[in-house]
Amino acid sequence: MFSLTVADHVMIAHSFRGEEFGPAQRVHGATFVVEAEFRAPALDAANLLVDIAAARVELRKILDGFDYNNLDTLPVFAGKNTTTEFLCLHVHGELCAALKDGRLGDGGKKVEAVKVLLRESPLAWAAYEAAVG
Amino acid sequence: MFSLTVADHVMIAHSFRGEEFGPAQRVHGATFVVEAEFRAPALDAANLLVDIAAARVELRKILDGFDYNNLDTLPVFAGKNTTTEFLCLHVHGELCAALKDGRLGDGGKKVEAVKVLLRESPLAWAAYEAAVG
Amino acid sequence: MFSLTVADHVMIAHSFRGEEFGPAQRVHGATFVVEAEFRAPALDAANLLVDIAAARVELRKILDGFDYNNLDTLPVFAGKNTTTEFLCLHVHGELCAALKDGRLGDGGKKVEAVKVLLRESPLAWAAYEAAVG
Amino acid sequence: MFSLTVADHVMIAHSFRGEEFGPAQRVHGATFVVEAEFRAPALDAANLLVDIAAARVELRKILDGFDYNNLDTLPVFAGKNTTTEFLCLHVHGELCAALKDGRLGDGGKKVEAVKVLLRESPLAWAAYEAAVG
Amino acid sequence: MFSLTVADHVMIAHSFRGEEFGPAQRVHGATFVVEAEFRAPALDAANLLVDIAAARVELRKILDGFDYNNLDTLPVFAGKNTTTEFLCLHVHGELCAALKDGRLGDGGKKVEAVKVLLRESPLAWAAYEAAVG
Amino acid sequence: MFSLTVADHVMIAHSFRGEEFGPAQRVHGATFVVEAEFRAPALDAANLLVDIAAARVELRKILDGFDYNNLDTLPVFAGKNTTTEFLCLHVHGELCAALKDGRLGDGGKKVEAVKVLLRESPLAWAAYEAAVG
Repeated sequence: MFSLTVADHVMIAHSFRGEEFGPAQRVHGATFVVEAEFRAPALDAANLLVDIAAARVELRKILDGFDYNNLDTLPVFAGKNTTTEFLCLHVHGELCAALKDGRLGDGGKKVEAVKVLLRESPLAWAAYEAAVG
Repeated sequence: MFSLTVADHVMIAHSFRGEEFGPAQRVHGATFVVEAEFRAPALDAANLLVDIAAARVELRKILDGFDYNNLDTLPVFAGKNTTTEFLCLHVHGELCAALKDGRLGDGGKKVEAVKVLLRESPLAWAAYEAAVG
Repeated sequence: MFSLTVADHVMIAHSFRGEEFGPAQRVHGATFVVEAEFRAPALDAANLLVDIAAARVELRKILDGFDYNNLDTLPVFAGKNTTTEFLCLHVHGELCAALKDGRLGDGGKKVEAVKVLLRESPLAWAAYEAAVG
Repeated sequence: MFSLTVADHVMIAHSFRGEEFGPAQRVHGATFVVEAEFRAPALDAANLLVDIAAARVELRKILDGFDYNNLDTLPVFAGKNTTTEFLCLHVHGELCAALKDGRLGDGGKKVEAVKVLLRESPLAWAAYEAAVG
Repeated sequence: MFSLTVADHVMIAHSFRGEEFGPAQRVHGATFVVEAEFRAPALDAANLLVDIAAARVELRKILDGFDYNNLDTLPVFAGKNTTTEFLCLHVHGELCAALKDGRLGDGGKKVEAVKVLLRESPLAWAAYEAAVG
Repeated sequence: MFSLTVADHVMIAHSFRGEEFGPAQRVHGATFVVEAEFRAPALDAANLLVDIAAARVELRKILDGFDYNNLDTLPVFAGKNTTTEFLCLHVHGELCAALKDGRLGDGGKKVEAVKVLLRESPLAWAAYEAAVG
């Protein structure tokens, strides 16, 4: 299996509901480094999995949907705890939609699975991986 | 599959028995960066896999069992070559015990697999991953 | 000149006033990796500059003053744009106060200068360095 | 499953054929950080998967085959687009040959799968993983 | 003294003339991570040293002058060994010109010194620092 | 001022004398990443400060003097607390001797100052910088 990963980052604010979150119930924030990994069993004739430049553009478009925002105020996240785990799932869904819409080219159509990893600090990160549904 | 990883480090001394170890047969040491990854197929109602703060506390307790020690002198490692690979297995076992004892909360009970990765230098690292037995 | 650096991190929300800030005028957030460097011309009899454990504790206390908060709501930052540069200055002042109060031991009293560096993302960071006033 | 990874790097020039490569159709270059991961279900009696020193030597020999070269001029890559993905496959093949030839010792003979990851920049990397065929 | 640093990267090919360069006399390449540090004694009324977004744009423009190229073929580098040290000097000169032209705003006019650091691999990097001439 | 830095690492054991060291009074260990920075005001005719390959070789020779050892048992460190700060000073002295002996070539003779930085963990590092005495 081949994989190709591109990285970017966002700087967001948010808060969590639930006593288990302790001080993170307050409005706080994070720089999330976002790593998007595309997996496919074969390369195309040019020896590419997906085009890195195209992958970076699509990831950036998805991140622009919530970068530099307080996630508590965005309709797309209404009523959700935007944990690192959950945001991985969110970006994963958006990337799969981009792949299926052909926004990552023909290479993207061969992608079988995607893994999205978000680093919230040097000491903690989360990921979600699943087939392109 | 979701995953959540927390990191910490230990600073230990040890030595190895066997000619294949060359200079590492002498007492030497390592800073091991320890990454503990928990995997589960779903999040809880709060959108958490396991609580990061709880995971860091439990990992720290496990590492306190051998941090700042010469592993050659600890009964738990008697007669063992404490290679990086072996220490991954050791920490994995301790984390699985913590999960099964409920020390990582209800979230921990849904964890299906754990991966423990130890970085011994910028140029070498090892890992052990397995289901929570 | 010797130097000793300890690192930690905070996860905060804030917003900026001024058109030049563009989207950062909205409430957003950051994980700041904080590096505190202490400089002294000589070591003590034990070959220490400052005790690493003590330095980490004092840095942590200072960071607890604003970690997991929206800086816009904290009286200490009222009316301030809490840019990365400014937060370096803030932590620098707090560390110098700790050094002068003897909270970093006798070693701390020989520290001549302090540099505080905050990383806001993999692509941008700021620092403030100055003598211990 | 255990894994053991060693890292090294190469500094190469190359160019790509195909309009989709844009400016990368020109002769340009890369520092590739190369991570070679060996996977095995068990350790040997000394608690080793493969010997780190031996793994680093074999990886270095493979990389010496194209390090400090313009890949466009090497017969082994004639007519190929030497994308990051493709180079992962190339190194993977060479490592599997080394394992099967016994150049990584008895430990190497138990290795069931290999993953080769090449980092071309802080923002993009690729990998190829497969069983030792 | 305050400092503000932004980072980017380039992927170039080049070769060196001189026996001391050994295998680097062949056309080879590098990913250079480029860190541009601006130093000033004070912040502006908005608590900024220079605007990070503007700094990133100007650094990118300078890097576009040689990114994805074989430096041996660019007139600007004719007859030069484009060592890592030399490229630091080159980028430093371009950044100082940008500062003096006001392309980094009023904040840029207060910048007293600039340091440019290029990482050629995880094991080697170079820098050039000097006053804004 | 130009600078050129090369990096390597050692894996050592040691212990400290003095109650202030707490658990570090026990025999423990560290992976020290060692960064050796050479500073000179000008480059040579080939645009080099010092040759990177030569610098790596000389640094490696110095590190071989204590790598994979228990520093408590080495005559060169008898009666010393081998703190991170102290080891920076030790390596600095050895590098200055190499520069003065001409082991780093003519380029090395122009080096005016050296900085040695040792990272003991992701959260703590020390350095010593001084003129080539």
